[in-house]
Order: sequence, then C-alpha cells, then structure tokens
Amino acid sequence: MGKRYILAVLLLAGMCSGAAAALPEIALLPPDKTRGTAVMQALSERKSTRVFAPEKLTRRDLSDLLWAANGVNRPDGKRTAPSALNRQDIDVYAAFEEGVYRYDAPSHSLVPVAEGDVRPVKAPVVLLLVAKEDTDYAPIDAGIVSQNIYLFCSGVGLATVTRGSMDADKLAKALKLPGKQKVILNQPVGYFQKTSKEKQAEKKGEK
Amino acid sequence: MGKRYILAVLLLAGMCSGAAAALPEIALLPPDKTRGTAVMQALSERKSTRVFAPEKLTRRDLSDLLWAANGVNRPDGKRTAPSALNRQDIDVYAAFEEGVYRYDAPSHSLVPVAEGDVRPVKAPVVLLLVAKEDTDYAPIDAGIVSQNIYLFCSGVGLATVTRGSMDADKLAKALKLPGKQKVILNQPVGYFQKTSKEKQAEKKGEK
Repeated sequence: MGKRYILAVLLLAGMCSGAAAALPEIALLPPDKTRGTAVMQALSERKSTRVFAPEKLTRRDLSDLLWAANGVNRPDGKRTAPSALNRQDIDVYAAFEEGVYRYDAPSHSLVPVAEGDVRPVKAPVVLLLVAKEDTDYAPIDAGIVSQNIYLFCSGVGLATVTRGSMDADKLAKALKLPGKQKVILNQPVGYFQKTSKEKQAEKKGEK
Repeated sequence: MGKRYILAVLLLAGMCSGAAAALPEIALLPPDKTRGTAVMQALSERKSTRVFAPEKLTRRDLSDLLWAANGVNRPDGKRTAPSALNRQDIDVYAAFEEGVYRYDAPSHSLVPVAEGDVRPVKAPVVLLLVAKEDTDYAPIDAGIVSQNIYLFCSGVGLATVTRGSMDADKLAKALKLPGKQKVILNQPVGYFQKTSKEKQAEKKGEK
C-alpha cells in the first residue's frame, strides 16, 4: 500500500467525521461494580420521572450509567444486557446539549457522532437505544437495555423514564444511522429536581 | 340480588376453574425488599444459564422472584416494570411440573390456571411473559420484565435465561389465553447446577 493511498484514506476518514470533530472527548471511568443499593431495593424504588434538575451528570455517574445500560461484563465480550442469539443488536447513543456520541461497549468509550442538540426531550443526557437490525427481537432487546438503565438509576438515586415518543426518522438522520438501523426508545437521565421545600431548607442552611 | 343468583354465579365460577381446582395453593411471602447484592454487582454478574439443579425454589425465592418480575412497588398500584402508557400489559405465569399459575400482582398471589406440565424447557419453574394486548410496545414491555428477572436472579444467586423459542400457540391454549393475548418470552429459573468438583468437595465434607 503506497503512502499516497494511506494519506487519501486518512483524509477521507477526516472528512467523514468532520461534523463531530469539534465535539470534546469525554473520557469514561472504569465502572464501579460495587455501587448502588441492594437489587430488591432498586426494584422497590423503580419509578418514572419526567422532570430533571439542570445539573450535568458527573463523570462517575455517566460512566457507570453507560456500562450498566449495555456494557461488557465478561472477558468473552458478553454484555450486561442479553440479546437474541447474542447478536448484541442494541447500540446506546448519548445525546447531550452539545452533541451526540455512540457508546462503544468493547472499549467502554464515547465516540463523537455529530455536533448539535438532537435530544427529543430536555434532560442532561438522553440515551437513545438503537437497533442495529430490524428484527422481531429488537424491541425485546431494547426493553432489556432500558430496564438496565432504570434499575441502575433507581439503585444510585438518578431520575429516568423510558419513552417511545420521538421523531425516529429525524433522529436516525442526525445519528447518521445506516438504513436498516432504527431508534427504538429514548431515555432521559438526570438528577431529581429538588422540591421548593428542599430548596428553602438549603437556603436556610446557607444563612 | 337473590340467593339463587349468587349460588348460580358461584357454581359457574367453580365450573370455569374446574381444571385447576386440584392444584395446590402456593401462598407467597411478602417480598424482602432489602435483599440481594448491589445493583452494579448484579449487572456485573448478569449472565445466561441453561442448565439448572433439580431442586425446587424455596417459597422465599419464588415470592421475591415474582414480585421482582412485575410486582406492585407503590401504593398507587404501579409496578417494578414500567409499561407503555402504564397499561401494565405483561402478565407473568409460573409453570411448574404440576401445573401453571398466573401471578396476580395486585394481591401478590398465585392463581391456579391449569393442571399439567406445560413448561417448554426443563427447570424448577418457567416464567411465561404474556402480553395482554398485541401492540408494538408489548415486546418492549416483555423485555423489561425479563430483565427484572435477570437482575433479581443475578443479585440473589439464581440461574436463568430468557428464551423466545417455544410453541406459543400451544402454550396460549394451555394457559387458556383470550385470542389477543400472546406468550412473548419464556424464562426458566432455578439454582445453579453444582459442578462435579463442587459435588466431590461436598462428599468429602460429609465424611
């Protein structure tokens, strides 16, 4: 392979990822696998929350959230979420105000995809559950990933809700998904909004 | 309402439940909501297991398993598993060697459905996830319930796997499901089969 060929490939790759080039790198921490309440307590406190505090997620929370959703939990590459025939057919995208990233499970890292705000609902981060193949199993596998997110959130005190409502075609374009890929669910995640009583108590504490 | 009318209703109810009349009552214990490992550890140990020890589940394990799957976790009747528009569209059936029961979440009890072994795979209990309505959301909602089962099992040391493979029409008949209801997944649950090394160690311990 000649040097000019390699150069051409690198240039092309650079052009293709141009739109996401300006997105900052978000380095994830290794997951904390001892974290959270007992699983029965997480189930007990599982609920849907549709309003979020404006604060962004800490790097710790974001890292653990993505791994919990569909991270690699075994040396053979298998995941926290099972999938039909181990096809690992659900990709998790993380949409922030600044842009959207794809969670690359094998490397436990966020890969920039596109600049701009594609979030279908207001929250610090909206996870988009994308089926890589349009099969009968894809909705089941998406539901499984969604519940990983719910129980992680419930176990560590984060707020979330799973939503089918969105413009899936518009999102598919924004995410540059190949034709057969499809956004099945979107799941905003954030901290619980403090009640006015809690805010008042905080103000009093500051005096 | 006359006494004769009430008697007729009772007789009719008795006739309808005739096939399940001989099934023993299985009284469930209230769920232990403090039980299990940390949620991140449960995610870390989540895996699929297809061979089970022959022992039946204890009443404690069975009670917590069913509640974890799709039990009521709030005073307003909402569940451990979210569902589209809160339709609570997934019923959990429990198939044992002796017969099959429906888990009634509001009363946290097992209602006898039919005598006989309908399990599509050999395990102490096979949970059947039934969609009450044939909607686009039903497979998502079934996946959510399935992952509740997985993470409960992982958190308390039980073995399980989610399966799409089964004769769904035959099962629907055995479960006496109305026309629009459908078995989406089946999920055997049991204790881990001991390895020959573990068995040898136990034998040595007995000496």
